[in-house]
Amino acid sequence: MSRIVFVNGEFVPYEEARISIMDRGFLFGDGIYEVAAVLGGRLVDNDAHLARLVRCLGEIGIENPYPVAEWAQLEEELVKRNGLVEGLVYMEVTRGVWERDFPFPPADVKPTVVMFTQEKSITGSKLAETGAKVITVPDLRWKRRDIKSVALLAQVLAKQEAAKAGVSEAWMVEDGYVTEGGSSTAFIITKDGRIVTRPLSNAILPGITRQAVMHLAEEQGLTLEERLFTVEEALDAAEAFYTSASAFVMPTVEMDGKPIADGKPGPLTRRLRALYLDMAQATNSGKMG
Amino acid sequence: MSRIVFVNGEFVPYEEARISIMDRGFLFGDGIYEVAAVLGGRLVDNDAHLARLVRCLGEIGIENPYPVAEWAQLEEELVKRNGLVEGLVYMEVTRGVWERDFPFPPADVKPTVVMFTQEKSITGSKLAETGAKVITVPDLRWKRRDIKSVALLAQVLAKQEAAKAGVSEAWMVEDGYVTEGGSSTAFIITKDGRIVTRPLSNAILPGITRQAVMHLAEEQGLTLEERLFTVEEALDAAEAFYTSASAFVMPTVEMDGKPIADGKPGPLTRRLRALYLDMAQATNSGKMG
Repeated sequence: MSRIVFVNGEFVPYEEARISIMDRGFLFGDGIYEVAAVLGGRLVDNDAHLARLVRCLGEIGIENPYPVAEWAQLEEELVKRNGLVEGLVYMEVTRGVWERDFPFPPADVKPTVVMFTQEKSITGSKLAETGAKVITVPDLRWKRRDIKSVALLAQVLAKQEAAKAGVSEAWMVEDGYVTEGGSSTAFIITKDGRIVTRPLSNAILPGITRQAVMHLAEEQGLTLEERLFTVEEALDAAEAFYTSASAFVMPTVEMDGKPIADGKPGPLTRRLRALYLDMAQATNSGKMG
Repeated sequence: MSRIVFVNGEFVPYEEARISIMDRGFLFGDGIYEVAAVLGGRLVDNDAHLARLVRCLGEIGIENPYPVAEWAQLEEELVKRNGLVEGLVYMEVTRGVWERDFPFPPADVKPTVVMFTQEKSITGSKLAETGAKVITVPDLRWKRRDIKSVALLAQVLAKQEAAKAGVSEAWMVEDGYVTEGGSSTAFIITKDGRIVTRPLSNAILPGITRQAVMHLAEEQGLTLEERLFTVEEALDAAEAFYTSASAFVMPTVEMDGKPIADGKPGPLTRRLRALYLDMAQATNSGKMG
């Protein structure tokens, strides 16, 4: 079966999926994206992903091309056409095709919509067993990190540093404090069992998995603390992990070459991962939390 | 004559110029661009533009696809095929096409190269006669503004604000100081005749026209001061202007609705514009300054 992707209203073979060189995504990074996980052929926490997509499009003044229910149908159709059991759905909406000029094109220019799937083993992740290593890098990004835009060069460079170092993620640092991972939310657990993550602001993306994990932790009566934390605190933590739509809850066992605690996935982290997996597997498309 | 553009080694009609949805320019803003002016069918200050292109590609680890001499030949061929007399050549190089993943693709993945021309009246600019208006906006950009990347969403939003306000450019402001325009370098001239512009750093793009104008000013024995300046200083200046490859030297006569000096293009600015035009018209491709 050849790979089917979605481009501007049509399901087409991947090889035919092309966009104009005048697309504002290509010329300006002028677009928004989302990534949702697929488990057992079903979308995980999809309502929240679509809500964030709609919010981000609004933030930069791109018209949302589909009602949320239609987005979900298109995603499900794409998953079905590709026979995807476990992996990701990627969605991108750009400000469309128009002669290159910085200001927005006329209002009747239609956004470009692209969607594709990627197969990925999430539940059976070997990395989750041994734990992920991270490095820290300066956070070079712009000042509206709450917007999930495709202008991702700073994240590309951060994650390339991680890849070069042979680790899975780069935790970005600003003024001595961890902001978040290159494509994930950073958490630590203090020695007295408090789960710490940075509060929402323009400095980080409001992670969908972050939100779900915090909700689960609350349900379990665990102590959550939304506050800034330093690199030193992370190195001194009892446990650490990061969350994302494609990694779920990923134990983090080493930072900048130094082990966190005993260098093994911590018990509370493993519990949160198991809880999240249970929830993700138990729910239908969009019916989570 | 149909418009001819250059895509990955071929000159093709614009309508056929398409790229893969997996291009890293489209997915990540992972590319570098340049814009060079064309006057009388000849490229202006092109050596300097190509040198910056090569430097920026190096900064983010994209292999430069062509030796500088070949770049220049391709640009000239594109100008010729489009019969372009006055306007711009746009060049973009991205990290190529590869299954979406943040870190760099394997080293043998070829960069994507796109070039196109745009017709534009530069020497006969009506705006240069009356002077341009600008607004100030917060500078939201990332911390490596010295890299001319296509991750331009902050600039798009700044220049859209300007367009909404009915003005030509947005001067971006950080900590009270003007950094630069959305796609230009900002200059003021003090009441005692000193030409002031921000020194080069990671906070601004090293403008090619900025450099040429500074060189001309020096040749004329004018006083240059590379230092930060505030919005208040700009409003209190004797003259102001901005420079770019497509605007050359653009008198700036109003900021945030308030006139600068008498609200007319200043004499020193007009002199610098005339000097730059003379130089641009007198030189061959790449043989300037």
